[in-house]
Amino acid sequence: MSTERLKKQIEFILEVDKIKNIFRMTKIHDGSRRENDAEHSWHLALMAFLLSEYSKEDDIDILKVMKMCLVHDIVEIDAGDTFCYDAVGNMDKLEREQKAAKRIFGLLPEDQGKELMELWEEFDAMETPEAKYAASMDRLQPMLLNFLNKGGTWPEHHIVRKQVEQRNHHINDGAPKLWEFATEMLDKSVEEGYLTE
Amino acid sequence: MSTERLKKQIEFILEVDKIKNIFRMTKIHDGSRRENDAEHSWHLALMAFLLSEYSKEDDIDILKVMKMCLVHDIVEIDAGDTFCYDAVGNMDKLEREQKAAKRIFGLLPEDQGKELMELWEEFDAMETPEAKYAASMDRLQPMLLNFLNKGGTWPEHHIVRKQVEQRNHHINDGAPKLWEFATEMLDKSVEEGYLTE
Repeated sequence: MSTERLKKQIEFILEVDKIKNIFRMTKIHDGSRRENDAEHSWHLALMAFLLSEYSKEDDIDILKVMKMCLVHDIVEIDAGDTFCYDAVGNMDKLEREQKAAKRIFGLLPEDQGKELMELWEEFDAMETPEAKYAASMDRLQPMLLNFLNKGGTWPEHHIVRKQVEQRNHHINDGAPKLWEFATEMLDKSVEEGYLTE
Repeated sequence: MSTERLKKQIEFILEVDKIKNIFRMTKIHDGSRRENDAEHSWHLALMAFLLSEYSKEDDIDILKVMKMCLVHDIVEIDAGDTFCYDAVGNMDKLEREQKAAKRIFGLLPEDQGKELMELWEEFDAMETPEAKYAASMDRLQPMLLNFLNKGGTWPEHHIVRKQVEQRNHHINDGAPKLWEFATEMLDKSVEEGYLTE
């Protein structure tokens, strides 16, 4: 018979399937629809190991980064996706997300619930080398998709270059070389008319 | 200026976005639509670290397992998803997938293309402890979703219990305790009328 522990783990695994219905602003490569949090998290975890040579710090724990990437948006099952340029929505974002983290990670056995809560908090605080590098992935990925979509959601929401830079300059803290690449991409976006200077 | 190496890595990262349009037979938790390969891969990688205590072998390299989970379906961008109970489609599956792997992993710098090719081949061969455990995740996840969907695609395709068992008994090679759980779930599925004995 399956143990209580396994039952809790499976309950969590089924509950987080809901993340597949949480849609972000960013569209997928062909512009056909918005991307959801599960797809986004998959992409980040994959990028994390493929681009690890660009991490600012040499000795990062890439397994931890990948775990962070996989769990960082789970709170949005309850709290929803808050558009990064939405000032009002961002005012109570933390409170909504903390409540969500408590409920959802709380489905797991205590030790694992604690691990995931800590991973999420570490990611959110953007202080450790792992969190900074993971945040770089989280910022770079939508920039890549927007570029691929000729600006994607930028012109739709009247976003200008300065806003994109302010939002994404954290990339520089986790992976300076990738920030250099990202700014080249912004130059090109302005040139091509995907983004307003 | 960004290097040739980084350009190749970014090209690959953008190319694999197409996996978000490769749909599987299995439906997501609420039955509203079929799941795509990116979502499925996210789910497997997350399960891999949460359920690692059930791996048959004690000392598995969980980072490698997670990488396998993230990349195992990338070949389907070219080769498409082959329904596991489709005998004809499975005849030339390997050939189609090998061609796809060569093209897609070939976009990466040589060392990384080789790493991903080896990860995919190792996963596919199901011989190492890591590959066996990763395969267990790959088999258990759709069973969980089908159960959540009161049988999901099983009755739709007239699948009977014996077929599900034949297809999924590999779980026992990678994670015996999870196979025990899975057979309990099949008992319950038959009881509830989700699956024909």
